[in-house]
Amino acid sequence: MPQRRFAVPDAPDPEYELSADEAVHYEWDAAIDPALTVDPGSVIRFDCRDAYDGQVDPPATVEKLLAVDADGHPLTGPVAVEGAEPGDTLAVDLLAFEHRGRGVTAVPPGEREGGLLPEEFRDPHVREWDLDASREGTPVATFVDSDAPDVAVPLAPFPGNLGVAPGDEGPHSTMPPRRVGGNVDVKHLTTGSRLYLPVEAAGALFSIGDCHAAQGDGEVCLTGIEAPMAVTLRLDLVDDHPVDGPQFETDGPFTSAGHDERTYATTGIEPDLMDAAKAAISDMIAHLHDRRGFSRPDAYVLCSAAVDLKINQVVDAPNWTVSAYLPESVLAGPDGDGFGP
Amino acid sequence: MPQRRFAVPDAPDPEYELSADEAVHYEWDAAIDPALTVDPGSVIRFDCRDAYDGQVDPPATVEKLLAVDADGHPLTGPVAVEGAEPGDTLAVDLLAFEHRGRGVTAVPPGEREGGLLPEEFRDPHVREWDLDASREGTPVATFVDSDAPDVAVPLAPFPGNLGVAPGDEGPHSTMPPRRVGGNVDVKHLTTGSRLYLPVEAAGALFSIGDCHAAQGDGEVCLTGIEAPMAVTLRLDLVDDHPVDGPQFETDGPFTSAGHDERTYATTGIEPDLMDAAKAAISDMIAHLHDRRGFSRPDAYVLCSAAVDLKINQVVDAPNWTVSAYLPESVLAGPDGDGFGP
Repeated sequence: MPQRRFAVPDAPDPEYELSADEAVHYEWDAAIDPALTVDPGSVIRFDCRDAYDGQVDPPATVEKLLAVDADGHPLTGPVAVEGAEPGDTLAVDLLAFEHRGRGVTAVPPGEREGGLLPEEFRDPHVREWDLDASREGTPVATFVDSDAPDVAVPLAPFPGNLGVAPGDEGPHSTMPPRRVGGNVDVKHLTTGSRLYLPVEAAGALFSIGDCHAAQGDGEVCLTGIEAPMAVTLRLDLVDDHPVDGPQFETDGPFTSAGHDERTYATTGIEPDLMDAAKAAISDMIAHLHDRRGFSRPDAYVLCSAAVDLKINQVVDAPNWTVSAYLPESVLAGPDGDGFGP
Repeated sequence: MPQRRFAVPDAPDPEYELSADEAVHYEWDAAIDPALTVDPGSVIRFDCRDAYDGQVDPPATVEKLLAVDADGHPLTGPVAVEGAEPGDTLAVDLLAFEHRGRGVTAVPPGEREGGLLPEEFRDPHVREWDLDASREGTPVATFVDSDAPDVAVPLAPFPGNLGVAPGDEGPHSTMPPRRVGGNVDVKHLTTGSRLYLPVEAAGALFSIGDCHAAQGDGEVCLTGIEAPMAVTLRLDLVDDHPVDGPQFETDGPFTSAGHDERTYATTGIEPDLMDAAKAAISDMIAHLHDRRGFSRPDAYVLCSAAVDLKINQVVDAPNWTVSAYLPESVLAGPDGDGFGP
């Protein structure tokens, strides 16, 4: 049986269950009535649609991508926490994730100006992932199509979009993250992590969605490994941990193999961090194309799923350094030996 | 005996030795006569002064920091590689580092506008490190002063500044990095790493200096753990690996403990990556001060030495996410248990 469930040891059974079919919304808005009201400390299972609202289902195609009709990320919620007031801190303990075996990474059409390099990638591109693969006991994502490169990206499920309702009146897009969370796309919010969020609206009004089976730091082509997933978590109020924005505790993943490992890196050096990030990813795509046999669109997809952007230095004026890191182990394929200790 | 030497297995003996006393320069300039000319494939040991040119020697004090008189990083070199021509690629294999037991991290005076948060840190601050400490067999840096916090930062020596001469005529500051390298401050250029650099001047004209015993991604207070060091490396020309800027192979460190580990993180969410980095570090300093008992200057120093800046996403317009990551293991002190497997 493939491993579809990732959970902390002794994960408690959920006291509540909420599905997107019962409670989905596509904007953040404190005026949305809570689908559920719970006491602090409650454990809830959220069934979440993927970022495409289920419209790029297997087999994933460019036609389905171009036909997607959604006004935002489908978020499951909101859940009100009894007694939560503006100024409080909500603690979110991520206890379990369960995927359904398939994921998608897509390059949006260039004219939508999505992704880090829209000018270099005008044409849409879609790759479907098998999330039921494994290598040496490590659950990995592999490409489904036989014409795709042989890669193995370790699964590390997390929610791309989770947060509480902004205090400002009216609807707010689900695209940009904010101090109350939302589309933060932090890949380290995995099983066992604890997220702290500032509460702005009475009841906090927590929602979640846009789960990813894995993602590189940067999410450069605009998508991680997008997948519908169920997430079990605990919502609690903590009175000794004030925060102005998201803060979190995590065990990673900080590496693909779980330990320091051989990695190829490209370095961008520019007076602007965004330009440096673009240069690093552009060089990594060229490297994957010229030396590793990837098509450029597949290289972009792999960067988004498994390449990490780190800020090496922000102080050597006027030029900053940003590098893109590709763990060699993800290239070896399901029969490789990259994941040993 | 403390471990002062970090080397690849079977590191070859150097064929040449070059010290800063023989060949130091404080600017990049293709017109500087090479101190040494070697065949491709040669192994050279460079004795390098620290970034303060030896002027903040033990005991390190603010007075010494303010009195530093240097017109740039002291770089040992240049070494010409026989046959190197513009357009070639120089490969630098980092084989061994040897420190001398002491290091310094300093916050510059605010009016010099150095560091990521000059407006928040107007006053200079200096901390000296003992590089001969160890914890559970891991060589670590600990603060020397008895009034300093109890931290243990694993050593991972690397050169902050290494590169080849720019092709453009005239002298060039050693402060900003360029496509030919220089002050890249990439903390992953450790023992066993291979760096590729584009050659712009005949002979390549390689120089190196500004070694760090450890550094966080970002180097936010302007300095890593600055230390004089000897570096043994191989210079070679490779004709099958063209690069437009620095690219490298490395085994890390991507974590402090060598494996995924518990980490506290603060998140900046802003429409500009630099602002997001500032917000993340500012929140981390507040966290270290408010919850971990650090003075704010010591928190800034620890961020520069051991906290990593990662770009979580650069695509969820108009707000980007940058987080600062503090490995819990560095806080436990020499008697803690953070470095076990």
